[in-house]
Amino acid sequence: MKILIRDVLLDGKRTNILTEGDRIAGIGGVNDRTDAVIDGRGKAAIPGLVNAHTHAAMSLMRGYADDLPLGEWLSNHIWPLEAKLTPDDVYWGTKLACLEMIKSGTTCFSDMYWHIESACRAVEDTGIRGFMSPVFIDQGDSGKAEEHMKENTRLAGKAGKKFGGRVKLALGPHAIYTVSEESLRWAKEHADKEKLLVHIHLSETEGEVEDCLKEKGVRPVEYLEKIGFLGPNVVCAHCVWLDQREMRILGKNNANAAYCPTSNMKLSVGSALDYDGLRREGVTVALGTDGCASNNNLDMFEAMKFASLLQKFHWKSQTALPAREALMMATEGGAKALGLKAGSIREGMLADIALINLKKPELTPNHSLASDLVYAANGSCVDSLICDGRVLMEKGRVEGEEKILEKAMEASKNLACRGNQA
Amino acid sequence: MKILIRDVLLDGKRTNILTEGDRIAGIGGVNDRTDAVIDGRGKAAIPGLVNAHTHAAMSLMRGYADDLPLGEWLSNHIWPLEAKLTPDDVYWGTKLACLEMIKSGTTCFSDMYWHIESACRAVEDTGIRGFMSPVFIDQGDSGKAEEHMKENTRLAGKAGKKFGGRVKLALGPHAIYTVSEESLRWAKEHADKEKLLVHIHLSETEGEVEDCLKEKGVRPVEYLEKIGFLGPNVVCAHCVWLDQREMRILGKNNANAAYCPTSNMKLSVGSALDYDGLRREGVTVALGTDGCASNNNLDMFEAMKFASLLQKFHWKSQTALPAREALMMATEGGAKALGLKAGSIREGMLADIALINLKKPELTPNHSLASDLVYAANGSCVDSLICDGRVLMEKGRVEGEEKILEKAMEASKNLACRGNQA
Repeated sequence: MKILIRDVLLDGKRTNILTEGDRIAGIGGVNDRTDAVIDGRGKAAIPGLVNAHTHAAMSLMRGYADDLPLGEWLSNHIWPLEAKLTPDDVYWGTKLACLEMIKSGTTCFSDMYWHIESACRAVEDTGIRGFMSPVFIDQGDSGKAEEHMKENTRLAGKAGKKFGGRVKLALGPHAIYTVSEESLRWAKEHADKEKLLVHIHLSETEGEVEDCLKEKGVRPVEYLEKIGFLGPNVVCAHCVWLDQREMRILGKNNANAAYCPTSNMKLSVGSALDYDGLRREGVTVALGTDGCASNNNLDMFEAMKFASLLQKFHWKSQTALPAREALMMATEGGAKALGLKAGSIREGMLADIALINLKKPELTPNHSLASDLVYAANGSCVDSLICDGRVLMEKGRVEGEEKILEKAMEASKNLACRGNQA
Repeated sequence: MKILIRDVLLDGKRTNILTEGDRIAGIGGVNDRTDAVIDGRGKAAIPGLVNAHTHAAMSLMRGYADDLPLGEWLSNHIWPLEAKLTPDDVYWGTKLACLEMIKSGTTCFSDMYWHIESACRAVEDTGIRGFMSPVFIDQGDSGKAEEHMKENTRLAGKAGKKFGGRVKLALGPHAIYTVSEESLRWAKEHADKEKLLVHIHLSETEGEVEDCLKEKGVRPVEYLEKIGFLGPNVVCAHCVWLDQREMRILGKNNANAAYCPTSNMKLSVGSALDYDGLRREGVTVALGTDGCASNNNLDMFEAMKFASLLQKFHWKSQTALPAREALMMATEGGAKALGLKAGSIREGMLADIALINLKKPELTPNHSLASDLVYAANGSCVDSLICDGRVLMEKGRVEGEEKILEKAMEASKNLACRGNQA
């Protein structure tokens, strides 16, 4: 499959982009014998956005229980509902999330959730790219730990390989306070052996740091370093409460951070990831939305704006995280953190491309595309989306979207009913 | 003109809404002899949103100079450009802003800007509702003050009355640090006499409070009270750095606050309006986007999300400014602050209505419409907009939008050229 995007704005210049198979085959030259041509006039091409931390199927719980204290929200609403989740729920919830991501310019996401094979199937079916981690929580229970290890070993084998190359299984040890040291060690060793990504929550709240200090005598990142957990295949979501030394350790170990500003604000975690600090230590910072129960959308354009504005506000600097860097965080940064040959539009890179419709009031007058995308746009500016060399959306239309909305609505209503009966 | 919105979701129930002239004529009953029928199926009706603080024509400077220190941004970029603004620039800039507001569900805004008659004409031509304040800055220069007084007197007379009822002239004394005490007193007296709204910036930065204490020996709100400036026709934009006593004074005087969370974060003003504190003192809090140079859009859905999340984050409370109250702030709150019989959909209210397209992934599964609108939606969820009993947008289309984009683009590029020549 060859696609030609003709006469499109790329890095401020009008040009053509050719894709072949799953790759970008060329910039500039026109190849007449393509299978499809997309008219790029009035549009700008940017790399597909990378959502480095979410729980996709939580789209089913969007708006289900907002504005509550964290403990009540989790214990009385979210966890009871999650206990009732079926593989079918997760399939339709993930499909709903994929649809939302496709429509708002995201070509790749890193997921952590239950019934992961159903989620993988949804990713496979919608055409997006996903790093899929089954939730690994043992709470120190060795029986549970063993189950998770078995399941992860199974998924690293045939069970996971049955999906196409876009769907990559990953390890999802939930957090240091929900997974035993032994299991964390196992997860990292298993991931290294199987060349898998590791996806973990890290230092989202101050309480987590205090507990770690009390129980382990060191801060969370120090603990993870001590047990040999850190490395370039590790993506740590949140990283809100790191001190200088912890940022240095992450940098030294080439570990990655996934910044989730919208979720951090909504759940009022009390501080913000220190982007300048992490950057100084050489840590790659990616951007994530978190799940729809704590955001409540998957719009990476909105996430870029929250990312920059939260840095400016919290760190009291009008120049913090400028637009260009926020855009890079959501593209190159995400791709680098996930170890993906994507995040920029160059020959040889994966053909993951979003086309922006520039004929919108909020993108006029267009003094700076980066500023406009980060501060003025939202996901609705995306006109067309190519992922892995396939057109997933053209002129705002995604095949089968009505059915996804219907089925996800049905799954969600049934789930809420079952939850209320509990 | 009679319009029937048939079979639409209103407050959770399917019903019909009838408008007649500029008013909502009835809910529920169907009148067959209407001039137009809008199919409300798959849509929810909400009151048109009220943007209580902006500088509309600054849309021309969107993305012109971001991520700079405040002083440099204003002195080297924004002010030089503003010095070159022509009435024609303001006309097209305001039209661009009105187009963006219409497309994102706003039916009324409160403006403060230069060349206000051009802005009024743009409001008149686009069909939206505007409270239009010419900027009043004298910097203690009595000659300048006199000019402004003359101009405002002229506008309160025939010059202002030539516009339709949707376009209301207002007073715009810029701030306590740019307008002399004498002029502030005059503005309030003039506004009271002519029954006009007064629109002022108040306590946006800590420096403003410190300077006021140094120069006047009291805090900004105390100063305004002392000179008899406060009252129910006064809307104070920002209100970031108020102490308890100042909030009490605003409440006692029935003055109104316009919260601008996105701008406050982008310009890193260092604190946030105290919504709970103001509410306790009975102050009506409206919501504003501020101008496009410091936001950089006019999307009130995005502003609602920033409003709630900034309260949650800054005041460290997961329950602060819940979705339902954020939505009320952007509708009822705005209407009340501006003294407008709008902000809710009831018989006799102004026919300012936004229809939300519910068939969108980010609005699925729709457990709570308020949560979805505030936390998940953006302005692109608006399908149709009625203002003053006229349909300004249907199915996402606004008449003449291409020409507005073109002319605003042209005006902005020319303005930037003139600015660079300076």
